Amino acid sequence: MNFRARKRRAAGAAKAAGGDGLLVTHLADVRYLCGFTGSNAALVLAGARAVLFTDGRYTAQAKDEVAGTRVVIAKKPAVTAACEWMVEVGVKRCGFDAVHTTVAAFETMRKAVPAKVRRGMFVAVEPLVARLREVKDADEIAKIRAAAELGGKLFDEMLGYLRPGLKEMEVAATLEHAARMAGAEAMSFETIVASGERSALPHGRASGAKLPKRGFVTLDFGVVLNGYMSDMTRTVHLGKARPEEREVYDAVLEAQETAVAAVATGVTAGEVDEAARSVLRRAGLEEYFTHSTGHGVGLEIHEGPRLAAKQTQVLQQGMVITIEPGVYMPARFGLRIEDMVLVTAAGSEVLTPSVKAWIEL
Amino acid sequence: MNFRARKRRAAGAAKAAGGDGLLVTHLADVRYLCGFTGSNAALVLAGARAVLFTDGRYTAQAKDEVAGTRVVIAKKPAVTAACEWMVEVGVKRCGFDAVHTTVAAFETMRKAVPAKVRRGMFVAVEPLVARLREVKDADEIAKIRAAAELGGKLFDEMLGYLRPGLKEMEVAATLEHAARMAGAEAMSFETIVASGERSALPHGRASGAKLPKRGFVTLDFGVVLNGYMSDMTRTVHLGKARPEEREVYDAVLEAQETAVAAVATGVTAGEVDEAARSVLRRAGLEEYFTHSTGHGVGLEIHEGPRLAAKQTQVLQQGMVITIEPGVYMPARFGLRIEDMVLVTAAGSEVLTPSVKAWIEL
Repeated sequence: MNFRARKRRAAGAAKAAGGDGLLVTHLADVRYLCGFTGSNAALVLAGARAVLFTDGRYTAQAKDEVAGTRVVIAKKPAVTAACEWMVEVGVKRCGFDAVHTTVAAFETMRKAVPAKVRRGMFVAVEPLVARLREVKDADEIAKIRAAAELGGKLFDEMLGYLRPGLKEMEVAATLEHAARMAGAEAMSFETIVASGERSALPHGRASGAKLPKRGFVTLDFGVVLNGYMSDMTRTVHLGKARPEEREVYDAVLEAQETAVAAVATGVTAGEVDEAARSVLRRAGLEEYFTHSTGHGVGLEIHEGPRLAAKQTQVLQQGMVITIEPGVYMPARFGLRIEDMVLVTAAGSEVLTPSVKAWIEL
Repeated sequence: MNFRARKRRAAGAAKAAGGDGLLVTHLADVRYLCGFTGSNAALVLAGARAVLFTDGRYTAQAKDEVAGTRVVIAKKPAVTAACEWMVEVGVKRCGFDAVHTTVAAFETMRKAVPAKVRRGMFVAVEPLVARLREVKDADEIAKIRAAAELGGKLFDEMLGYLRPGLKEMEVAATLEHAARMAGAEAMSFETIVASGERSALPHGRASGAKLPKRGFVTLDFGVVLNGYMSDMTRTVHLGKARPEEREVYDAVLEAQETAVAAVATGVTAGEVDEAARSVLRRAGLEEYFTHSTGHGVGLEIHEGPRLAAKQTQVLQQGMVITIEPGVYMPARFGLRIEDMVLVTAAGSEVLTPSVKAWIEL
């Protein structure tokens, strides 16, 4: 991990936003910049200096995890200690992330600095580190690739297990057990198993419902491996499908593959969204595609960029995004197909290894 | 669920804090007040009126879950729609929870109201709903009891499974699988399995380490059932223990039982903490008890009250708290014993059914 380069870029972004210091408290950002994974942390970047403030519970862990950043075990709240230190070393304008700082934490920050320097001390800046994190470095891509491969392997195993009569929750339990046994630290998010009519719910948490003799089963899940997350969705059909189900599946698959093919460095997020949406529009299904096409993934399950209609953000080499169009026909059926995709210089590379062709079990 | 009474109490608390309206965006609070479990919500209480703002993804779900509160499916951000509505109906001073509102969300709130009413419109108040949630009603106690009972049952099953050579992660996988199969919606938090030397880590996430032939294994876990969480810890010994291990176990058990016996309506949180701490002090182990004695549990895993040294908060009938002293001897061994305890009129009732006596497997 090149923490030094990451910190340098973050300090540079803060400077460009008018800050001679940057206060980082969002835990995924802290981990990204210095490797620390504890639950209480305030990281300050001030020019070339970086200091991590945490508490006594993390003395040993911080020593293990953090190299190249000074660690201070504070008795006070970490954010208070961080702000006091900034005053000491003469930081005049500290950038902070308004999206991840609560009003109460902001008050704590203000109170930690003397009244005479308080005015102008704290500058709300865009989530700068989140923006840097959108473009993954080689180390991150390797970790994400490993997570995506494990996800695909688990899905393939599930194909031999899915059958009518299983409860959705049993399916989730079995999948999550296999993930853990294979070394996953956790699931990326609450596993979605949505079967039969419930497949029409875009986010149908696994319930007590039983898999039907005939109907769709959507599995949407991810694993966390070395801190990095995977995210994939496959929809399979139990029993013989009706022609309409097959037609909708084919349309969603075409939308998904068309969007994947549209991914390239320099293309906007909105163009990729439109690539998926236009296929479903032509199929007369646009109104049933009720969410956006995808999102970035990394240390968090939802990162930038956001692939939605009219988004002007330009895709860059090294971004890892999901492409996940779906169609949901209320009280009837629905389906979604989702891959993780790496934006490359030439175009894109699908990281999710599992097949997307029609599967009837 | 008596949502009407809960909303009335919350509106009353807001009024006492100077607000003629209350904006609730913390999702556990929203669920508590109106039953909605979606991921995007802004609930406004204004006198006897209550309106929930969410988005189109949740049309069907909100209809299912919410009764007695008007639901508005907003095209704008929920919090914007909520603030605009407050202006329309003449709310002059809206309380909001500074601990759960980000600086960015606060800006969104401010921008949603016309400049001429903005001044004085938003009043940061204590987390009022969190405070109400500390005292559980009969419906909540029944749900928490069920979650605690399931947790205990799962632990008892694990006793027949634990053996040297299993990886900690396999233990977590097996426990979590059993929890899911028994109907748990999720685990309350990342399962802790800390064995051998790792038992000296108060929060040792399940790792690839193998359970030792001789040594402690600490299991700290919880299940979510109907939205309510359980939390329990047991420490068992694999193989024959050394006398010192047994002595420390007995001291922790005495501390735990002494603290449970100290729980009663009218006692302060600090007194319960001191009850546990004084036992370990007399045993010469106080320096190794490096955390607080417990916390409230309910819709979230960490709620008030906080049972720590010098906390003056008075325990009330209907609170559900953990009592979880531990001793951690770095690089040697550690252990913790944790129950969930209901504060009753007469004293307390332990909700965690599993035995706490010494177990050598």
